[in-house]
Amino acid sequence: MDSKGLYALPAEVPRLEPHLPPLHGGLATPRSLPFVTLTFATSLDSALALAPGIRTSLSGPKSAAMTHYLRSRHDGILIGVGTAQADDPGLNCRLQNQAASTQAASAPGLLISADGGPRRHHQPRPVILDPRARWPVPENSRVLRLAREGAGLAPFVVTGLTDPEKIPGGQRETLERHGGKYIPVKPRGLAETGESYILGWEEVFRALKEEGLDSIMVEGGGRVINSLLEAPHNALVDSVIVTVAPTWLGQGGVVVSPRRSDPSAAAVRLVNVTWHPLGEDIVMCGRIPR
Amino acid sequence: MDSKGLYALPAEVPRLEPHLPPLHGGLATPRSLPFVTLTFATSLDSALALAPGIRTSLSGPKSAAMTHYLRSRHDGILIGVGTAQADDPGLNCRLQNQAASTQAASAPGLLISADGGPRRHHQPRPVILDPRARWPVPENSRVLRLAREGAGLAPFVVTGLTDPEKIPGGQRETLERHGGKYIPVKPRGLAETGESYILGWEEVFRALKEEGLDSIMVEGGGRVINSLLEAPHNALVDSVIVTVAPTWLGQGGVVVSPRRSDPSAAAVRLVNVTWHPLGEDIVMCGRIPR
Repeated sequence: MDSKGLYALPAEVPRLEPHLPPLHGGLATPRSLPFVTLTFATSLDSALALAPGIRTSLSGPKSAAMTHYLRSRHDGILIGVGTAQADDPGLNCRLQNQAASTQAASAPGLLISADGGPRRHHQPRPVILDPRARWPVPENSRVLRLAREGAGLAPFVVTGLTDPEKIPGGQRETLERHGGKYIPVKPRGLAETGESYILGWEEVFRALKEEGLDSIMVEGGGRVINSLLEAPHNALVDSVIVTVAPTWLGQGGVVVSPRRSDPSAAAVRLVNVTWHPLGEDIVMCGRIPR
Repeated sequence: MDSKGLYALPAEVPRLEPHLPPLHGGLATPRSLPFVTLTFATSLDSALALAPGIRTSLSGPKSAAMTHYLRSRHDGILIGVGTAQADDPGLNCRLQNQAASTQAASAPGLLISADGGPRRHHQPRPVILDPRARWPVPENSRVLRLAREGAGLAPFVVTGLTDPEKIPGGQRETLERHGGKYIPVKPRGLAETGESYILGWEEVFRALKEEGLDSIMVEGGGRVINSLLEAPHNALVDSVIVTVAPTWLGQGGVVVSPRRSDPSAAAVRLVNVTWHPLGEDIVMCGRIPR
């Protein structure tokens, strides 16, 4: 990271191209759903963090730079409301010389965007999955601050509250004033606890596609990742990119481990797998078979 | 694996040499403890198996061949009694053309053993950690069958029963008839459940060294691995070699995740880490800082 908080793209950024949405700004075939990349970093014992709500530095600076490169390659970055509240993430893209970096990492000729010019300082749209609209849309949250500074976009908040009257007016006003908005999605039902709605992944992704987001990078947290790894909706995931750091966080961490549909078989086995050493970490790219 | 059940060493066997005990059969400096390599294969969610007692095929054939190469490079292979009972493992080395394979994988000139000739069909000594001598030493267990066939050695069973009278006579007789024996180690105390003894890792390794085992490969199961990853005794581990398969076994598996000594810090962070893709899997080699 330089003095402006920007990341230089490491020379050895892995050859991720086959695992990413197309660079030229359109998908080969028209789709009703966006290209979905699931990406996160864990310890060797599959933990995202030491404990719920504890931001944990796991992977090295090169992996952080890669995350920002991945953000530059997606239209939207999706997280759950728990992560929005616990981590207060910026969800913007902070790469030095972004156009040049993108060019260096991609095959020549692939970099021309739909309007014929190189992509300049593309910022992804933060997307917060918030079934009950409980994120209070704080003015001083990092994501809104960055939006005010022009260093990022204001979030789209996906909610199961389809009646706009049920969303606190102040939240909506603040969000819209920054350029964001609520996106209502009809819930499938009430969660077991009765406190929240169950949103269907297909409905969520369809709604985001209708908002013009052709590619979504899902970053966390644990509940969102585990849910999306489970069958049958894991078929909606086009690409999986996991960074593993050579550490065991130990018992008590926030763990990625999906529920099994068949107790006697693995929950997910990836195909088309490639591994890319990156500093002290390893980056795994793969695909969930359909 | 060929028709005889032997593994061919894959051409891309990783360059593990810096992470292994010295090839020429002696350690650079005299030590009172053996060189200890901790090695196992997990899923991305750090599971060794789908459930306790369920033998789970995780890693690919190349990783299995690597395990047999590692076995050829150690004097002893240690497992816990739970794994001995659940998996009935053979714990021998099954490599094709073993001497030639070892030569191919190592630097020229390193292959000469202490007696000046190449190592021929070295078989490691199985070691079963069995504080209460509850492994019944079954005649039809794979490890004893292999010993009878001359395809492996009979195990050393490390026990906390220092009074030989307390070990069932039939077990001792069967073990010794096959060429194995019990190795008593004074326990540190009773385990919390009151049902078993706590053996100190240092005492266990010292006893094995006194039996002439200069290098020990610890293979499993979960309790043994987690215990050995914990401070302070993780300082006894010289090398860690973990194979990760690109699959999530999902919730309910037998998981490697040590207890933390400090709840606010990672249990273990490895140093000198290298990563080696091997088929669909990745092999990580590293060292626990002392």
